Amino acid sequence: MTYELYYWPGIQGRGEFVRLALEAAGADYVDIAREPEAQGKGVPALMALLNGATVTRPPFAPPILKDGALLLAHTALILHHLGPKLGLVPADEAGRLWTHQLQLTFTDFIKEIHDTHHPIASGLYYEDQKAEAARYGAEFWKTRVAKYLGYCERVLERNDGKHLAGDALSYADTSLFQIVTGLRYAFPKRMARMEKDWPKVVALRDAVERQPRVAAYLASKRRIPFNEHGLFRKYPELDA
Amino acid sequence: MTYELYYWPGIQGRGEFVRLALEAAGADYVDIAREPEAQGKGVPALMALLNGATVTRPPFAPPILKDGALLLAHTALILHHLGPKLGLVPADEAGRLWTHQLQLTFTDFIKEIHDTHHPIASGLYYEDQKAEAARYGAEFWKTRVAKYLGYCERVLERNDGKHLAGDALSYADTSLFQIVTGLRYAFPKRMARMEKDWPKVVALRDAVERQPRVAAYLASKRRIPFNEHGLFRKYPELDA
Repeated sequence: MTYELYYWPGIQGRGEFVRLALEAAGADYVDIAREPEAQGKGVPALMALLNGATVTRPPFAPPILKDGALLLAHTALILHHLGPKLGLVPADEAGRLWTHQLQLTFTDFIKEIHDTHHPIASGLYYEDQKAEAARYGAEFWKTRVAKYLGYCERVLERNDGKHLAGDALSYADTSLFQIVTGLRYAFPKRMARMEKDWPKVVALRDAVERQPRVAAYLASKRRIPFNEHGLFRKYPELDA
Repeated sequence: MTYELYYWPGIQGRGEFVRLALEAAGADYVDIAREPEAQGKGVPALMALLNGATVTRPPFAPPILKDGALLLAHTALILHHLGPKLGLVPADEAGRLWTHQLQLTFTDFIKEIHDTHHPIASGLYYEDQKAEAARYGAEFWKTRVAKYLGYCERVLERNDGKHLAGDALSYADTSLFQIVTGLRYAFPKRMARMEKDWPKVVALRDAVERQPRVAAYLASKRRIPFNEHGLFRKYPELDA
């Protein structure tokens, strides 16, 4: 069973949370929009799903996953669906729902992170909303990061200290790895000062990075480098 | 089986999407934070779930649902869990996932709606971010509303024209009712000008309003009136 992932080819973005789960599980998947157009793939294949007039249940936005006849969109839903198939959630239903709940909290956090560079409109350039981004960022770092990462620290403390859900790696863990890694990329000074407040979160991030399949993925060309088109952007003036 | 809903008592907010589903199905539930503290309910009961040191899987934020031993947070997850129990999703798994996907798209839309009055920080007053809200709103109405509601219109066209998922009322329908109704409350002039572009969306909203249980709920004291503490806020200067 080969999964087909459809996501923008030049960025990690929200698709990276799906890529990380697939990679951590060693799943067989094709990152369609990064494959040649001549083979019927590439960005046109993605656009056909978004804009095709015959798609019965049209996705609103990427990432999109094709699993056989099933077409699913939205990062959190894709991960919820893949979780049991990839062995990346606890086996019991309550544990599966809990992992999904954590991912939905991350969904909210990720949107707030996105807005550090686009507080006014995703359709405008960062350069056109720099003043607002500076003001947004001040509040974001004063209250929001500690609220979300402090929450994750608390969740880890109340579980086994090493995993967010259950006693093994879940996609919530790979997602938290990506969030902390992305925040470090975009805001190295702020994170260096603050992350000591969340030792279990940092230890989890490091453990995910060392997981052999994740480590191999991160060292491969499949891992798109962070850049200033994605979710986590390094704008030095925002990293006070 | 009595469900326990935990949400802020003075606002519709995100909890209203859960209330509407419970009401549309005629489910037996208690809106805990609106009940007397003397009975161990009220806001302290909500705060105990949020801040209690012994909650193994702490919720990040309300709404929270207790279903027997199961504690769930996040609007979209609660609705996903309740859907089959309330008969508010298609019976097949693909239809259930599709309904959840729609609700997740609404989750994103709702956050963008929230930011029309709080683009800089949810922890600041609207009065402290009025200039930014005006600029945010201009872009929001230029591109985002049509993107989301135009998408809903397309989904309706490709389904049966009357329901977002399957051939009967789903919680996606009650959620879209709430979104359109809330936008009308907050932005009456803009909506009056624009909503003719989405006739099926408007017809669906009206049909949900007429559903007997929903109609009874809307006429009851259980329906908290819209106000300027909730998600949809009427600030005339934002309704150009």
